Amino acid sequence: MANSLLDATFAACAHPIRRGILERLATAEMTVGEASRDFGVSKPAISRHLRILEEAGTIVRVVDGRNHRLRINHESLDEAGAWFTDQRAVWERKFDAVEEFLAASKENDARGKDGRDG
Amino acid sequence: MANSLLDATFAACAHPIRRGILERLATAEMTVGEASRDFGVSKPAISRHLRILEEAGTIVRVVDGRNHRLRINHESLDEAGAWFTDQRAVWERKFDAVEEFLAASKENDARGKDGRDG
Repeated sequence: MANSLLDATFAACAHPIRRGILERLATAEMTVGEASRDFGVSKPAISRHLRILEEAGTIVRVVDGRNHRLRINHESLDEAGAWFTDQRAVWERKFDAVEEFLAASKENDARGKDGRDG
Repeated sequence: MANSLLDATFAACAHPIRRGILERLATAEMTVGEASRDFGVSKPAISRHLRILEEAGTIVRVVDGRNHRLRINHESLDEAGAWFTDQRAVWERKFDAVEEFLAASKENDARGKDGRDG
């Protein structure tokens, strides 16, 4: 995923109303009204949040005559989520390496002792 | 994870230099210099990025006399990554439900035909 798209996706997810809209759209495709009601903010505020979500590619607006329906873009969120998974994989490998080193050291110690004892 | 902390974590990750610093720190604890060199920006800019990362709880500064070392906070990134995993689980359940419905419809159709044929 290009850096700038990842920037936009994370920025889009950095607001509780925008995450709320994405959480609703994860369950189903919805009208703008369904996806955005009961957040207790003005229509212009909702429009701004939707624009940020659309520009980041996290949602898609399907225009059918006068009907605007919103659909989540799973791929975009999957790719952003993968960044976290990748970091986790890096530090898990690091911990594995430390554990292997400690296990090898212990074994060497034990062998050393056996040598002295025997 | 509290909404405001999740906001801060996603905002912290919404910049390539800050992600770059986190990617380095995922591999090891480092000095500020090691974690922040070669990004081609000024020291004050780096300080601002580090402050955003610290305030979001994504990194911890370990002060040892005049030595400042930076350490990644795995838990914070894991919890932010879990938000994406949760959304994925929701839409995967949705697709499973659709598939089950389609499979059940097919089976019913087949039974209906058997009934007429028999």
